[in-house]
Amino acid sequence: MAVYTQVSAEALAAFLTRYDVGTPVSAKGIAEGVENSNYLVETSGGGAEGGATRFILTLYEKRVDEADLPYFIGLTTHLADAGLPVPRPIRDREGRALQRLEGRAACLIGFLPGVSVGEVAAPVAHEAGRSLGRLHAAVADFSEIRANEWSLTGWQRLAASLGDRLDEIEPGLTARVAHELTTLDAVWPADLPRGTIHADLFPDNVLILDGRVTGLIDFYFACTDSLAYDLAVTHAAWAFDDMGDWRGDAVGAALIAGYEAERPLIDAERAALPILCRGATLRFLLTRAHDWLTTPADALVTRKYPLAFLKRLDHYRAR
Amino acid sequence: MAVYTQVSAEALAAFLTRYDVGTPVSAKGIAEGVENSNYLVETSGGGAEGGATRFILTLYEKRVDEADLPYFIGLTTHLADAGLPVPRPIRDREGRALQRLEGRAACLIGFLPGVSVGEVAAPVAHEAGRSLGRLHAAVADFSEIRANEWSLTGWQRLAASLGDRLDEIEPGLTARVAHELTTLDAVWPADLPRGTIHADLFPDNVLILDGRVTGLIDFYFACTDSLAYDLAVTHAAWAFDDMGDWRGDAVGAALIAGYEAERPLIDAERAALPILCRGATLRFLLTRAHDWLTTPADALVTRKYPLAFLKRLDHYRAR
Repeated sequence: MAVYTQVSAEALAAFLTRYDVGTPVSAKGIAEGVENSNYLVETSGGGAEGGATRFILTLYEKRVDEADLPYFIGLTTHLADAGLPVPRPIRDREGRALQRLEGRAACLIGFLPGVSVGEVAAPVAHEAGRSLGRLHAAVADFSEIRANEWSLTGWQRLAASLGDRLDEIEPGLTARVAHELTTLDAVWPADLPRGTIHADLFPDNVLILDGRVTGLIDFYFACTDSLAYDLAVTHAAWAFDDMGDWRGDAVGAALIAGYEAERPLIDAERAALPILCRGATLRFLLTRAHDWLTTPADALVTRKYPLAFLKRLDHYRAR
Repeated sequence: MAVYTQVSAEALAAFLTRYDVGTPVSAKGIAEGVENSNYLVETSGGGAEGGATRFILTLYEKRVDEADLPYFIGLTTHLADAGLPVPRPIRDREGRALQRLEGRAACLIGFLPGVSVGEVAAPVAHEAGRSLGRLHAAVADFSEIRANEWSLTGWQRLAASLGDRLDEIEPGLTARVAHELTTLDAVWPADLPRGTIHADLFPDNVLILDGRVTGLIDFYFACTDSLAYDLAVTHAAWAFDDMGDWRGDAVGAALIAGYEAERPLIDAERAALPILCRGATLRFLLTRAHDWLTTPADALVTRKYPLAFLKRLDHYRAR
């Protein structure tokens, strides 16, 4: 959420000569996304990119594995080609999207208008659901595979690594998580339709303008898993407020209805959804608990309180 | 250099209704300036601001004294009205530029194109000097007064507060600074032409596009002092590289020549310049030493190494 790598005016100007986008007009470091350095760059315009003059320049910092970058770039290019409003990686005159700049892997990316969803209500949840359904339809012919680091196996490994430290967050949490992991392991659906999933479509990763979705962003958790699990993640992200309180039935229902308008669920997916939602909440409970326990309290990085996801889990368990 | 206060999409939309600038199209938190929160905001455009659609929205964090904000807003408005390329505070329909948003003092400010000067050479130094000369000419009829917190008295106070801790940076530095302060106190010119000065016109506070100055930014150290001292600060900032090494005679000479093209120095100012430059280097040596000694080494804020200014001071003493 900061700019870690500085790009000088000269380095930027030299970098942009690789592309047919014109010369730099302005460049501002922006505080956005996962732990990368991002600049909002305006150029004088070129021909090849339809005269676009605004771009995000991303320099990948250490938290993103460079080996994954061709996958992310291939995926977002595929989705942009399919008409989805995702950040399009720009290719230079030699056809390369992945570059190096200031010692970092770097990519120039198309700018998307819109503002991150703040106040969640049923109409915007419906639009977000539709976008997710369109995304899942559009990846039918995307053949690249990336394992989901945060699958059930990943949760089990993470929980084991934390030992009983979850009790530092709430007494008894270690046992509750262990019990939930055992339950999910027994009932986790193995053969739902799979494909490429976003895996992190929280409201702040959806850009909206005039009630319309203008951007789906931050694909750095995208991977291959069951499509319905992605809907479950999105449900867990949208149907509750930041404190983990249920927003009422309308928001979650609108999300699913919007999704099904683009990609109807099969019966097995619909039946599995409650279990998948429990898994989704456990995933974020565990990764946020890990960050909470390993981030110094005085670090400038915002720690997200993990127990909001325990409340979500309780909600799904009670249904 | 980060976004400390989050502004929700809804709060931004509501905020912008005060102005005749249209509705929000995008908003990105930017990593820029002193310790304030800044957003680059794009709007659908309005009438009153000449159809401008891009703005910086600044929320003032604790390091800026709110009591000073009317001064800064009055100054930049005055300079923008005079045709200087400075960030213009935008007034709402009731004529107010200073607002409150998310519990902070806030101001919507006109966006300026251009990229911060990176590589300093004589031609751009000449342009920067001209801009400073124009600024000093334009404040002739700006009557607001703000004391210079970092005048000779301020340096003396800061040095006293550090005691002998300067020796932690370099053995003997405490004594050298004390000696320099005594010298400057004896010879500091008392009656040079005064006016409003920028007081911090480093290359990163000057925006350039196609070799032309398109922006003078970051007026949060502006105050009332001798105009030639501002030229001395700018000289100390431009004529040396980041390590404190002299860039060669051409850069500093071009800066002064550019300045004099707009506002010729009087003899007393020209004679005082070497002493003023020594003062300017001591000012930054002391404030950076203070930050260096009081900022934890693992903080995310960049600490600027103070001894680059000791090298500058040595340079001016040797002339």
